Amino acid sequence: MVNKLPDYLSKKNGDLWLTEDEYDNLKISYRIKDIIFDQKSSFQDVMILDSYNFGRMLVLDGIVQTTSLDGHIYNEMISHIPLSIHPDPRKVLIIGGGDCGVAKEVCKYDHVKQIDMVEIDELVVKACREHLPEVSGRLADSRVQFIFDDGVKFAKQKKDEYDLIIVDSSDPIGPAQALFEKSFYQSLHTALKKDGLMVCQSQSPIFHMDVMNQTYERIAEIFSEAKMYTAVVPTYPGGFWSFTIGSKKHIEPNPLKVRNKDTQYVNEQIIERCFALPQFMISAPSIT
Amino acid sequence: MVNKLPDYLSKKNGDLWLTEDEYDNLKISYRIKDIIFDQKSSFQDVMILDSYNFGRMLVLDGIVQTTSLDGHIYNEMISHIPLSIHPDPRKVLIIGGGDCGVAKEVCKYDHVKQIDMVEIDELVVKACREHLPEVSGRLADSRVQFIFDDGVKFAKQKKDEYDLIIVDSSDPIGPAQALFEKSFYQSLHTALKKDGLMVCQSQSPIFHMDVMNQTYERIAEIFSEAKMYTAVVPTYPGGFWSFTIGSKKHIEPNPLKVRNKDTQYVNEQIIERCFALPQFMISAPSIT
Repeated sequence: MVNKLPDYLSKKNGDLWLTEDEYDNLKISYRIKDIIFDQKSSFQDVMILDSYNFGRMLVLDGIVQTTSLDGHIYNEMISHIPLSIHPDPRKVLIIGGGDCGVAKEVCKYDHVKQIDMVEIDELVVKACREHLPEVSGRLADSRVQFIFDDGVKFAKQKKDEYDLIIVDSSDPIGPAQALFEKSFYQSLHTALKKDGLMVCQSQSPIFHMDVMNQTYERIAEIFSEAKMYTAVVPTYPGGFWSFTIGSKKHIEPNPLKVRNKDTQYVNEQIIERCFALPQFMISAPSIT
Repeated sequence: MVNKLPDYLSKKNGDLWLTEDEYDNLKISYRIKDIIFDQKSSFQDVMILDSYNFGRMLVLDGIVQTTSLDGHIYNEMISHIPLSIHPDPRKVLIIGGGDCGVAKEVCKYDHVKQIDMVEIDELVVKACREHLPEVSGRLADSRVQFIFDDGVKFAKQKKDEYDLIIVDSSDPIGPAQALFEKSFYQSLHTALKKDGLMVCQSQSPIFHMDVMNQTYERIAEIFSEAKMYTAVVPTYPGGFWSFTIGSKKHIEPNPLKVRNKDTQYVNEQIIERCFALPQFMISAPSIT
């Protein structure tokens, strides 16, 4: 039982509500059935809440990170698209991704032999594996090495080691800010093998056009090819999200690779078509 | 000046907030700069509010209908896709669409000679033409006939008259419910010429799977061909929206038609690719 509720949880007429306080001009409130998990780590307040509309949700410092209803969309889109591009990805690095959803998707590819997952907060992994099975799949695959460390520091020590690096970061405020710096993308380039590629979430085309453009520009400067794609993520503001790939080789997805991969969102057509950008994104100066 | 605020508007620490009360388990609140327009019609409370994140918004009975920031996405997607399918649409009927955004898009096609716009609430048209120019474009085109009447009744009187019918309805609660009935789609079939087609918004694939499937099924039963496509609509719940086309002829979009049409969202690639549906939508029993 929770004795004193944090500011982002409130009771109204007997109902519990979570109100996200991330934005000054927009507040989203979720009606909550139950607090499933609630502990403080050295980094943040880690909660699993059961909500009426979205099922169980991972909530860090009062901000919804992923939900049972739609977590698979983001996780499938950040995983299967790069996996459909690399001809033979064997060693994969995931930076962040504490909810284990990305690792779960990568595990669907038999030819992947090792997945290093570097997450700073062990408590997030523990909470999600136990209490958020719809997203984590209770991840237990011997190919996954859990490394509880700072992803930026970890990546800097690596050279010519990975086929694919997936950066599953939170928003570029606080600790995650370093994951949007040019020096970080440079260290990913060094950590990748000569035919390797990286992917990161690059924020909302509607609300964070500046971060999105900057991310694309930085990656395009370092990698020989860069490409942006989009997906719908209902619980992120605006529901529309961008991803950016940086690759040492030509980017050409092979949609057949996703066949029989037990996905809910991604399929061959989505892989072929997710690179079609709306006119206002193409009109942005840097994105091609 | 407003003396007494309606329930959906509230003051907190000197700031004005609009809180949508459409859903029991999810509340979205927008910080408001100013009330631009506020009048009651015989049908609803009609407001134009200036918000911090979305610019000016049309708000009916406290529910956001369209905004300056993203209104163009919905309006372009419900207009240019069917206009790219019909080989020579000359006479177009718009049912609903009081914000004038759909009519504005249809006017971009020179070969369209007449646009009948049947909107039940004249006050919505007046408010949007004057105070929401980003969406309405202050619509003033001699090809547009404004008819302030019940769209269901109007469509029932027509036979073999239109090349294209666009149903720009609000959600299927209250008066708009009739726009989701099978008998209504049947009257559209009758009102269309022998090579005509119709399009309607068919709700969110995430939150209204039942309405979406039902709409598709009903249209597929009446028309010789039916097809679903999707778009991102940031201010609708979930941000992901479906549209359904019913056509008397084979549905084959010609993306070249959108060239030089001064669009912000739609382009040739989007037209080609908007019909790619996520796996969970294809897995729904009725949708092909």
